[in-house]
Amino acid sequence: MGKTHHLEPHLFYYTYGPAEPALVVKPGDTVVTKTRDASGLDEKLRPLPRSLKATSPITRYHEGNPLVGPIAVAGARPGDALAVHIRRIELNRPTAWSSFVPHFGGFTGEGPGRGLLLHSPLPTQRFEWRLDRKRNVGTLTLKRSKVKEIRVPLHPFIGSIGVAPRFGRVETALTPGEYGGNMDCIETRAGTTLYLPVWVEGALLYFGDIHAAQGDGEVCGVALESSAEVTVELGLRKAWPLEWPGLEDRSHIMVAASTRPLEDAFAIAHVEMVKWLVADFGYEKWEAYQVLSQVGTARVGNMVDPNYTVVAKFPRKYLPGAR
Amino acid sequence: MGKTHHLEPHLFYYTYGPAEPALVVKPGDTVVTKTRDASGLDEKLRPLPRSLKATSPITRYHEGNPLVGPIAVAGARPGDALAVHIRRIELNRPTAWSSFVPHFGGFTGEGPGRGLLLHSPLPTQRFEWRLDRKRNVGTLTLKRSKVKEIRVPLHPFIGSIGVAPRFGRVETALTPGEYGGNMDCIETRAGTTLYLPVWVEGALLYFGDIHAAQGDGEVCGVALESSAEVTVELGLRKAWPLEWPGLEDRSHIMVAASTRPLEDAFAIAHVEMVKWLVADFGYEKWEAYQVLSQVGTARVGNMVDPNYTVVAKFPRKYLPGAR
Amino acid sequence: MGKTHHLEPHLFYYTYGPAEPALVVKPGDTVVTKTRDASGLDEKLRPLPRSLKATSPITRYHEGNPLVGPIAVAGARPGDALAVHIRRIELNRPTAWSSFVPHFGGFTGEGPGRGLLLHSPLPTQRFEWRLDRKRNVGTLTLKRSKVKEIRVPLHPFIGSIGVAPRFGRVETALTPGEYGGNMDCIETRAGTTLYLPVWVEGALLYFGDIHAAQGDGEVCGVALESSAEVTVELGLRKAWPLEWPGLEDRSHIMVAASTRPLEDAFAIAHVEMVKWLVADFGYEKWEAYQVLSQVGTARVGNMVDPNYTVVAKFPRKYLPGAR
Amino acid sequence: MGKTHHLEPHLFYYTYGPAEPALVVKPGDTVVTKTRDASGLDEKLRPLPRSLKATSPITRYHEGNPLVGPIAVAGARPGDALAVHIRRIELNRPTAWSSFVPHFGGFTGEGPGRGLLLHSPLPTQRFEWRLDRKRNVGTLTLKRSKVKEIRVPLHPFIGSIGVAPRFGRVETALTPGEYGGNMDCIETRAGTTLYLPVWVEGALLYFGDIHAAQGDGEVCGVALESSAEVTVELGLRKAWPLEWPGLEDRSHIMVAASTRPLEDAFAIAHVEMVKWLVADFGYEKWEAYQVLSQVGTARVGNMVDPNYTVVAKFPRKYLPGAR
Repeated sequence: MGKTHHLEPHLFYYTYGPAEPALVVKPGDTVVTKTRDASGLDEKLRPLPRSLKATSPITRYHEGNPLVGPIAVAGARPGDALAVHIRRIELNRPTAWSSFVPHFGGFTGEGPGRGLLLHSPLPTQRFEWRLDRKRNVGTLTLKRSKVKEIRVPLHPFIGSIGVAPRFGRVETALTPGEYGGNMDCIETRAGTTLYLPVWVEGALLYFGDIHAAQGDGEVCGVALESSAEVTVELGLRKAWPLEWPGLEDRSHIMVAASTRPLEDAFAIAHVEMVKWLVADFGYEKWEAYQVLSQVGTARVGNMVDPNYTVVAKFPRKYLPGAR
Repeated sequence: MGKTHHLEPHLFYYTYGPAEPALVVKPGDTVVTKTRDASGLDEKLRPLPRSLKATSPITRYHEGNPLVGPIAVAGARPGDALAVHIRRIELNRPTAWSSFVPHFGGFTGEGPGRGLLLHSPLPTQRFEWRLDRKRNVGTLTLKRSKVKEIRVPLHPFIGSIGVAPRFGRVETALTPGEYGGNMDCIETRAGTTLYLPVWVEGALLYFGDIHAAQGDGEVCGVALESSAEVTVELGLRKAWPLEWPGLEDRSHIMVAASTRPLEDAFAIAHVEMVKWLVADFGYEKWEAYQVLSQVGTARVGNMVDPNYTVVAKFPRKYLPGAR
Repeated sequence: MGKTHHLEPHLFYYTYGPAEPALVVKPGDTVVTKTRDASGLDEKLRPLPRSLKATSPITRYHEGNPLVGPIAVAGARPGDALAVHIRRIELNRPTAWSSFVPHFGGFTGEGPGRGLLLHSPLPTQRFEWRLDRKRNVGTLTLKRSKVKEIRVPLHPFIGSIGVAPRFGRVETALTPGEYGGNMDCIETRAGTTLYLPVWVEGALLYFGDIHAAQGDGEVCGVALESSAEVTVELGLRKAWPLEWPGLEDRSHIMVAASTRPLEDAFAIAHVEMVKWLVADFGYEKWEAYQVLSQVGTARVGNMVDPNYTVVAKFPRKYLPGAR
Repeated sequence: MGKTHHLEPHLFYYTYGPAEPALVVKPGDTVVTKTRDASGLDEKLRPLPRSLKATSPITRYHEGNPLVGPIAVAGARPGDALAVHIRRIELNRPTAWSSFVPHFGGFTGEGPGRGLLLHSPLPTQRFEWRLDRKRNVGTLTLKRSKVKEIRVPLHPFIGSIGVAPRFGRVETALTPGEYGGNMDCIETRAGTTLYLPVWVEGALLYFGDIHAAQGDGEVCGVALESSAEVTVELGLRKAWPLEWPGLEDRSHIMVAASTRPLEDAFAIAHVEMVKWLVADFGYEKWEAYQVLSQVGTARVGNMVDPNYTVVAKFPRKYLPGAR
C-alpha cells in the first residue's frame, strides 16, 4: 500500500513543462490536494495571489487554468506511461461560474484564440451557478426565458490534466495535445484511470480546472468552473510508449486525441484505438476495425480550444477475458 | 384513430425526389412495410429483381440503399413538417452483413466517394453477423483475434429516411442533408419521432437501409446491414418550417445536421438547437446557449458519407413544463 | 473546319441536367451566344423575363446564374470527354455589379447556404463597377476610404460552366463538382480548353455567369458580375474518362476539384494531376509526385460556395516533347 | 547607414525561443551569414557536428531545420514589429535534395506528425537535384519516366524564419505560427521585407532552411533543400502590434497565416489583410473587403506542416499614393 501525501501548493503553474517538483512520490502513492478554478479562485472565492503564481523571467503566460504540480513519480522515464487513478473529486464551494468570452467558443468563428471572421465578437456574459453538493445538483436562475431555473446533476471532472510534454512548454489555458492538457473531457472523473506518455524523468504531472458539470463539446467554451479537493493515486506502467492519452473506467477503454480539424481528432482517436486493441488485446487489425465500427462510441470533449478533443470509447466487455 | 396501411412495394427507389406515390395516407395513419437491406437483399436474402428497381430513362443511379416509398401524406405542403413516429422495427432475418469498401470509410482518406490520397485503398472484406432476435443479440465470429466471438446488443434503426428534397433528387446511397437521407443515426429507432421539412406536396417519404446495430460514426462505413418490417405513424405539423431534421424521444429533443467538414455539422446542429429552444420553448437566445453548453450531448451519426452527420441532443427535462 | 452556330437562347436554365438541347453541334463546330449575368440581367440591364426561365412542374429552383444551353455534341457518350475551347469572351455592357449577401462569403461563417454561427449576418451592400472595354479596365468609386477610385484590369472569364452531371440535376447557383459548375475559376477564360467528363448522350453543356474580374477565392462571394458574348469551339476526346475537370492553356495543364473542406479540394486536385501525368504523359507515379511538388502552382477558385474549388497547375514545359 | 556584421554561428538552434543572442545589432544594420540545410548539411555537405547543436538539459528536440541566430535588435520591445529586409540569398553549393518521409506530406493522411489513417506510410525516397547557379537552374534526372530530365528555374527563399514566440519555445522543424517559423513561403526571398511581431526584448530572430525552389503547397513536404549565404538588413517599426507576419515586396503587401484547417488559414490571412488596409491605409472596412475580393491573390505556402500556411496578397497599386 502506498503512502498518502497532502500537497499544499506553494506555486500554481500556467504551463505544462519542466519545473522543480512540488512533490516526489513513489508508484502506488496517493496525493490529496486542492485545486483552484480556471480563473484562480479558491474554495472561498479568493483570487490567486501574485506570490503563488509561477512566473518566468523571460516570457509572459496567458493566466488561465492555474494548476497544481508538478508531481514527480520516482522511476518514471521516457517511454513509460504514467497511470493517474482519479479517486475522488470533492467540490469544495457552493458556486461555479460560466461565461461567454469574446472570439471564444464553438459558434463564434474563432481561430486559435481570435476571431477569423469579419463579425464583431459575441456579447460577453457571466453566469453564476449554485452548487448543492449534498444533492449533487447545480442550479442556474434564468432571467429572460420561460424556464426560470435549470437544475443539472453535477458530475465533477478534471478539465486540465497533463504531463511535461515531449518538448518545451505548453500553456495550461488552452491547447491540449499528446501530453493531455486542457482536454475538457468529462471522462477524467473519479473512477477513471488516465494514462499519459512520459517524456521527462518523473513525468511531472499537473492538474486543476475542475468542472462541476459540462455538456459535450463545451460549446460556449466555458463549463461550470469551480474548485475542489482532488485525490489521485499514481502508478507507472513501464515501457509502454503511448502516442496519445489512454483512459479506462469500469465500462470502457478510451483514447483521447486533440487536434484540428475535428475530423482529424476523430480519426486519430479511433486509429489509436485500433492500434491499442492490436498491441495489447490480441486483436487482428481488420477485425479490430470491424468490431470498433459496430460497438465503439465517441464523445467530443471540447470543440473550442485551439485543438479539439475527441474520445473514442471501446467497451471492456469485448476485451479478452471479460465477462 | 388513423388507419393502418400494409404497403407491399412494387418499386424500390434509389433516389429521394418526386415520384408517383406508392401510397397516400392521412395524418394519423400508420404504415407497415418490409424494407430490404443496403444491397437489396430481403428477409430471405433474395436480391432485388430488376423489375422492382425504379429506373430513369435519362440517368443511372448508384444502386445502394433501395428504399420503400414514396408515401404521400395528404395535406402536406411546403413549409409544413412531416412527423414520422417510428413505432416498430422488427428485424426479419437471422443475419446481417458488414464490409470494407475500397476508398470508403472514416480512416481511408476518402473524398466524396473516392480516394484523395496517393495510397492504395484498404483491403476489401466482408463480415457475416448472426442475429438472435429472441435474445436481441448479434454475433460475429472472429478468425484472427484472441477474442473469438463478439456478441452485441441489437438496437435496430433506420439508416436512410428522408423526403423529396427542396430541389431535384438525391441518391439514396450516400449524401444526407436538410431533407434527411442516409444519416445513419442510431436515434431513428422505435420510440423516436423524426420531423422532416416538407418541400413538395405530400412530402413524399422514403425509408429503408435498416441497421441492426452500429457504433458511433460508423467508422468503417458499413453497419450490421439487414432487413426488417417497419411500422411508422405519420403526422403533420402545419406551418412549421424546419431548416434541418428534428427528432424527439422520451428523453431528448434533437437536431441532425449533415455537411462537411465535421466541425460545421457540429456547429449547425447546435446553432439550430439554440434556434429551436428560442422559437418553440421560450428560451432567450444567450440563456439557451449557456444551458445547451452545460447539458447538451452530441453524437456523430456517421463520419463516412460525403456528408457527415452530427446529432445535437437537449434533455426534455429542461423544457418548460417538464418535470 | 467546323460550322459556326449563333445561338439565341429561348430558355435560360437554373439547373445542370437532362433537358431538350437548345442546339446540337458536331465536334469541331463553334457556338456564339450571349450570356446574362448572375442575376439574369442582359447587356441592356433588362431582367430575365419569366417566359425565358426554364421551370419545373415539380420543384422550384434557386434563381441564381441563369445559363445558356444545353448544347449537345453529336457522338458524345458516357466515358468521353467534352473539350470546350474558349475562344472569346466579349463583355457587352458598360457595368458590372458586386455585392455582399447575408450569410454568404468566405468570412461569414456560412454553412452550405446559411449561417452556422450565432452571429447576425454581415451587412448587405451593393457595388457598381464601371467597365471601360476599350482600355480593359473596371473602375469602382469608393466613398468612405482614402483611396477614391479603384481601377482593375479586366480579365473576363466564365464563372459557371458544366455538363449534365453523372446523376440527376444540380442547381446552377452554387455547387460545383465533378461536372464543372459554379467553379468561379479565372482560368476558364479565352485561350483555355476545358475538359469535362461526359455522362449523358450529347454531354449537354451549359454556361454563363461571366465575371469581368475577380480575386483569388472570390472571398466576399461575388465578383464583377456582367454579361458577354461568348464564343466556344466544341470538341470530343473519345474514351477519355475524367474524374474531375481538366484544363489546358498555353502554359499549363490543370485540374479543378471542388469539395469541402478546402484541404480535400487541394488534395484531390493534386492527386488527380499525378494520375494525369502518369496516365497520359509517361510519368512514373512517384517521380510525378516529386516534380509536381517542386514546380506545381495552385489557385483557389472560390472559397465561398457550398463546395470550394482548387485548381492545381502543372507547367507544360515539363511534359514530354515540350520545349 | 548601418553596419554590416558577418555572423559565424557557434551554435545552430532547433527551437525558436529565448536564448543568448549570437549577435546584437542596431536597427539599420546588416547581417551576412551562412545557413545549413534542413538536415544540417553545409555548403560542403558536411553534417552539423554535435558541438554546434544547441541542446537543452531538460528536453530533446526534433533535429530538423537547424537555424542561425538568435540575432537581437537593440531597442526591440513587445508591441514593436521587426522588419527583416531580405537582401540576398546566395546558394553556395551545387546540389539540393528532396525526399518523401513516412506519414509526411499533403497526400498521406498525416495528422500532426503521424499517420491518422489505417494505411501504411508511402514509400521513402530521396531525390538529388543539381544546381547550376550561373544559369539559375536546378536539374533532376528522372529514371522511370518518359521525361528524362527536369530543369527548373531556381528561386531561393528562406523556408524557416521567425522570432521568439509570445510564449515558450517552438521547434524549428515544423510548426509555423504568429511568430513566423517554418512557413515555407516562396515570398520570403530577396527583395521582400518580412514583418514579425516582437514579443521579447530584442525580438531574437532565427532563420535558415533555404529552399532553392518549391511548388505551391510543398505537397510532398520537402522542397529543394540546400544551403546559402544570406544577407538581411534589420529594422524596427516601433509600436506596431502585428497579429500575424506581414510581408512587402515591390508589387504586394501580404499577410501569412498558419493554422489548421486550410480554410481557417485562408480566412485569417484575408481578415488580417482587411484589418491592415483599415489600420494603415485609410480603407473603410467594407470597401476594403470588396476591393480585396476583386484584386487579391492568395498562395498556399505549405499544406504539410502541422499548421498550413496561406499568404494573402494585395497589390500595392491599390494603396493610397501609389501610381
